[in-house]
Amino acid sequence: MAPGRVDGNPVEGSTIHAAKDQLVTAKKQPAADTRLTRLHDHVLKTYRILIADLCQQFNMGHPGGAIGMAAIGVALWKYAMRYAPHSPDWFNRDRFVLSNGHACLFQYSFLHLSGYKAMTFEQLKSYHSERADSLCPGHPEIEIEGIEVTTGPLGQGVANAVGLAVATKNLAATYNQPGNEVVSNHTWCMIGDACLQEGVGLEAISLAGHWRLNNLTIIYDNNQITCDGSVDMVNNEDINAKMRACGFHVLEVSDGCYDIDGIAQALETARHSSEKPYFINIKTTIGLGSAVAGKAASHGAPFGAEDVKAMKVANGFDPEKHFEIGAEVRDFFSELPERGKGFVTEWEEALRRYCGEFPELGEEFQARMRGEIRKDWRELVPKTFDTAPTASRVSGGKVINPLAKAINSFMVGTADLSPSVNMIWEGKVDFQPPSLQTACGINGTYAGRYLHYGIREHAMAGIANGLAAFSRGTILPVTSSFFMFYLYAAPAVRMGALQHLHVIHVATHDSIGAGEDGPTHQPIELAALFRSMPHLLYIRPGDSEEVAGAWEVAIAYTDGSSIISESRHKIPQLHGGGEGKGLTRRDGVAKGAYVLQEVDDADTADVTIIGVGAELSFAVDVAAALQSERGVRARVVSFPCWRLFEMQSVEYRRSVLRRHGPKDAHTAGIPVVVIEPYAPNGWERYADAGINMRTFGHSLPGKYIYDHFGFETVKMTDKVVGYLEGIKEGKYIKGEFVDL
Amino acid sequence: MAPGRVDGNPVEGSTIHAAKDQLVTAKKQPAADTRLTRLHDHVLKTYRILIADLCQQFNMGHPGGAIGMAAIGVALWKYAMRYAPHSPDWFNRDRFVLSNGHACLFQYSFLHLSGYKAMTFEQLKSYHSERADSLCPGHPEIEIEGIEVTTGPLGQGVANAVGLAVATKNLAATYNQPGNEVVSNHTWCMIGDACLQEGVGLEAISLAGHWRLNNLTIIYDNNQITCDGSVDMVNNEDINAKMRACGFHVLEVSDGCYDIDGIAQALETARHSSEKPYFINIKTTIGLGSAVAGKAASHGAPFGAEDVKAMKVANGFDPEKHFEIGAEVRDFFSELPERGKGFVTEWEEALRRYCGEFPELGEEFQARMRGEIRKDWRELVPKTFDTAPTASRVSGGKVINPLAKAINSFMVGTADLSPSVNMIWEGKVDFQPPSLQTACGINGTYAGRYLHYGIREHAMAGIANGLAAFSRGTILPVTSSFFMFYLYAAPAVRMGALQHLHVIHVATHDSIGAGEDGPTHQPIELAALFRSMPHLLYIRPGDSEEVAGAWEVAIAYTDGSSIISESRHKIPQLHGGGEGKGLTRRDGVAKGAYVLQEVDDADTADVTIIGVGAELSFAVDVAAALQSERGVRARVVSFPCWRLFEMQSVEYRRSVLRRHGPKDAHTAGIPVVVIEPYAPNGWERYADAGINMRTFGHSLPGKYIYDHFGFETVKMTDKVVGYLEGIKEGKYIKGEFVDL
Repeated sequence: MAPGRVDGNPVEGSTIHAAKDQLVTAKKQPAADTRLTRLHDHVLKTYRILIADLCQQFNMGHPGGAIGMAAIGVALWKYAMRYAPHSPDWFNRDRFVLSNGHACLFQYSFLHLSGYKAMTFEQLKSYHSERADSLCPGHPEIEIEGIEVTTGPLGQGVANAVGLAVATKNLAATYNQPGNEVVSNHTWCMIGDACLQEGVGLEAISLAGHWRLNNLTIIYDNNQITCDGSVDMVNNEDINAKMRACGFHVLEVSDGCYDIDGIAQALETARHSSEKPYFINIKTTIGLGSAVAGKAASHGAPFGAEDVKAMKVANGFDPEKHFEIGAEVRDFFSELPERGKGFVTEWEEALRRYCGEFPELGEEFQARMRGEIRKDWRELVPKTFDTAPTASRVSGGKVINPLAKAINSFMVGTADLSPSVNMIWEGKVDFQPPSLQTACGINGTYAGRYLHYGIREHAMAGIANGLAAFSRGTILPVTSSFFMFYLYAAPAVRMGALQHLHVIHVATHDSIGAGEDGPTHQPIELAALFRSMPHLLYIRPGDSEEVAGAWEVAIAYTDGSSIISESRHKIPQLHGGGEGKGLTRRDGVAKGAYVLQEVDDADTADVTIIGVGAELSFAVDVAAALQSERGVRARVVSFPCWRLFEMQSVEYRRSVLRRHGPKDAHTAGIPVVVIEPYAPNGWERYADAGINMRTFGHSLPGKYIYDHFGFETVKMTDKVVGYLEGIKEGKYIKGEFVDL
Repeated sequence: MAPGRVDGNPVEGSTIHAAKDQLVTAKKQPAADTRLTRLHDHVLKTYRILIADLCQQFNMGHPGGAIGMAAIGVALWKYAMRYAPHSPDWFNRDRFVLSNGHACLFQYSFLHLSGYKAMTFEQLKSYHSERADSLCPGHPEIEIEGIEVTTGPLGQGVANAVGLAVATKNLAATYNQPGNEVVSNHTWCMIGDACLQEGVGLEAISLAGHWRLNNLTIIYDNNQITCDGSVDMVNNEDINAKMRACGFHVLEVSDGCYDIDGIAQALETARHSSEKPYFINIKTTIGLGSAVAGKAASHGAPFGAEDVKAMKVANGFDPEKHFEIGAEVRDFFSELPERGKGFVTEWEEALRRYCGEFPELGEEFQARMRGEIRKDWRELVPKTFDTAPTASRVSGGKVINPLAKAINSFMVGTADLSPSVNMIWEGKVDFQPPSLQTACGINGTYAGRYLHYGIREHAMAGIANGLAAFSRGTILPVTSSFFMFYLYAAPAVRMGALQHLHVIHVATHDSIGAGEDGPTHQPIELAALFRSMPHLLYIRPGDSEEVAGAWEVAIAYTDGSSIISESRHKIPQLHGGGEGKGLTRRDGVAKGAYVLQEVDDADTADVTIIGVGAELSFAVDVAAALQSERGVRARVVSFPCWRLFEMQSVEYRRSVLRRHGPKDAHTAGIPVVVIEPYAPNGWERYADAGINMRTFGHSLPGKYIYDHFGFETVKMTDKVVGYLEGIKEGKYIKGEFVDL
């Protein structure tokens, strides 16, 4: 199709070449007067019946959305998007995100029709089967060819798409040369009504508008139906006006069920936007053609065998046949793999030219495409540190700033806490639209690698996921905020972990040590969530040396995401100046936990004290007081990360904790007491007793807060002594955790 | 002040009586030509210097916002708001929410000046002191006289304010009679730039517009500064257009630093809005008068002693004096307690008339004001249940529907999952604006008690907090969604728990049993968060009987919030028909855990199996298989709620778990194995080994998913047997949790 052609049908109400910010009013029904229009019509019918069959098969699934979006899908996969089915990971492919992920059949079917090899017909038909290896899970998953990000939790995809578009902008600004554009892809994000209601979607939209991401198009499947019924029950906004206010161009397609040409033309207009992202508002009918068309009932349940039959009859299909895709339809899509090969060949040729003309940049670009960062990155990590008390958020800055400066894979951002999180390196440049000049003197460039996300923690983490998903290893996104506000971001942090995305989150103010900000800002229970989350390292380093270790781990851990949890306040330094000089050891962090201080003849120690993060020194102080004032011989273990510890051998773990007896595993071992002002939940795995928080925090300045809750050396020492006496007195059952 | 008066100064650009949706353009500087204007000016100066002093005192705090909002504060407390300082809990008071809670000094100072008794001058000066009993914590806290909700995490206050306004609307629609309006208060919500960026704020704004809450006014302290610098770094939206698109009237005040009259007039206009909420966009200068005025530096740090001195000199104050509040200023505010008494007297008179004219309604209204629900509510809980397998989300509906129908304290809502969560009772009426008629046939009334929140989980929980905070016990909000999406809502759930707000969250689809929706929808690690959260009961009932128990607990637990966690899929019923007939016991739920099945001579049992919630029957099945096929004598414990169990005596807890030996606490007890397809974290407190999830879930239909992860009777039985053999073989250390 030549973009802009509308099969000779004049468009009512306005020209189809809508000016920016005007609406496309398209024809109401397809005029069946051209061969292509008839073919389109047949493809749509085939597609809709296929979706109905796929859901009917196992009497499960979400048919309505996919059916309503059929014409959008044809416009995307057949006309608008540039991709290569046989090279699904082609670097410069357009990215497509299905933010309304429950409509996953939409994507699976078009992946199949357009020739993605893995998405065989058999695979397509395995939707909701008993096959654990199905490539058609209930929501799109990143592991599948042609799927860019896992979606499902609503609104996330919008943030991911913004991240994907930012990645393109940044790489293009960094590598493209005049006449030699090696990064030029577009990002298409399909949304439903829900993504416009979810806060994370609204945050991301706001940023997309601010950043003027003209390489991003949001396609709104405007069917006005959600699970509860019609959208006007919960939303009567003027959505076009809202999107315009957020910095988008808006196009509207009134007949989104049939008008493939109008949609394709709107998409083409959007691709060539000069300065803003586009929002394409496409009116559709959910479950079109079924007995429940336009109703919530068509959203999340199959139509029933009778209705599916009726659909077939009404459309001239054989009611007894299932999954019928005629030759005409196959043929319609058959050119796509070849077209894709053409895109790839053209791009590879451009890349060859580029590498010839700009060999250094070309080499760097290719290394980044391979997901490599410079091999000597560890050399950039400081080896020595000041011994004066230092907030670990300050240590974090010292560790990461030289890396972020030197390695342009790093895209570092913050949810409006630049002065607090210390992630700014000397000479850092903001990622901002080139046309922006701010009141505080910033001149925008997309080549910048420091992102001001605003006070939008959730979108920040979702956008970071998009940056990481663009092409694994090409960009290493780092986010930052107060630890407490990673609860806002948690759904996106989870999605990053689920997708094994390499994202590093820097969470400062990570305990009651945050002080006067009070209980709203003092995390007590939040670590329990992240410590339980698969593929997520929650690391609480105890001083600068451990901060270095935490960063080394987080950079090396490419199988998932990490949270580096740092203190607001100054904490004692136990490293004696740096690597190997004092108690703390960066390589100890990599093991999750390690013996910080051993006693002579360790098997005969009286107690092991676990210390963690901002309060690691408390364990050291208590051990010293136990030894000097009570004659109690205490070992000290530093325990920055549970998940890393779990990855160690049982022998290593036992050697650290020594809960077994001196001779064998059955004689009484050494009791373990953990000190951490978090809820104890989960520490029971590693300790026998704990000095923890059982309540929310309190607003008190940092120098008073710990004492207020009993985290003071004498009080804690008394508790440990009391506990050890209690053991002798037989007060406790072995295996029963004691809250001290 | 007479509203509408502008001291004779003509207003530039438009009339001060702005038409709805037009802007007020106010004068740029106060003309010092009237006594009142001079007095206003003096009050503002005094106030700003007071704030600077309060932050300087302990060299901590957030001065900039409070200083910038000085004129807004005067307009609110002196003119616009109806409240009674000596009766801070007066039922019909206006509610004020400081969503930008870090500017708490703003509120504390005005509470002090307007005569709240608890907020003495000494208390005011305790801001950031070492006093643990300070009434001036780092963010406003609900426990303090004159503070409606705890704020701090940004955006939450907006949602709370929407909830407060909904409460008024619902109570007014339920109880007010023509000419006899016993509920007529207004809600004022102060926000900064951040609340317009946070997703939860945007979600709540969208709902406020939809619900046409003309009794809500959002006051925007538009200073264009956040921590990172100028807002144009992260936001260049046309905010007025956006708010209009969301269904708000917009007024703008251009000289928000001085123009008390203009602000007061805008507030008065907003109070009398006929059909929409108002958004008042007030341009201010952060840290006005300091050397860092208009800069981010004035946001979160004191100005320094020299600068504070300079401010005093520049304003004609004695630079050596601190906390100076002159008699003229005291006098300016002195009428407020008396005025407040007048409001209360007038209202009490109206209430007396009301109760005389409408004795039944009056009695009910008064009971609700006292926070009472009918004493016989437990009688409404079903006593018997079907014995056929039932999804606990269905059981939940059966339990709560008759209660919600009969007790109009219940305001039940859902984030667009009505068909899934089963919270609709026969004859339920939606809470919708009276002017609304939806495509699906709803005619709005504010008397309705079923809330469609849309796909806005976070705002839902924040709004529920506002409903609960309106007046403790008057409204019992119930929210509902899939459990996984309570991660979206978690920051608001936390705020509810922190404030001891009585809110019940119904979380369905609570395990991998959610099935084909896949890992994005299958909670694995989320319970760890909520089980660690103070003042929150996370309850997983195991069948209909336990669902009844869970609801009884959640309704009775007025000291905080609860989550009732329900299955998507049908689960076996262990109650034998109802209360006391089978294994499960509703009164057992109240204890957190209880013995479901004991063996003869319990001390000699081989193992205790803990079962939970949707998978409780797995424990029963495994115990039966152990007994019949392996000769292993297994006890079974049902364990729906950790926090409730922790509230029991140590004797009770030990009697349930029997981890002590038969004679005393030191001989070997009975090993405990927990079965729950969640991350194990925290179970180590109650069990010695576990069959749990260590990965994310998988998309497979419900009938395959459990087996896929090994939650199948034979496999689990083998694991338990293997574990018991391992103990005999000495493979494990007592106290070391074993992942089976």
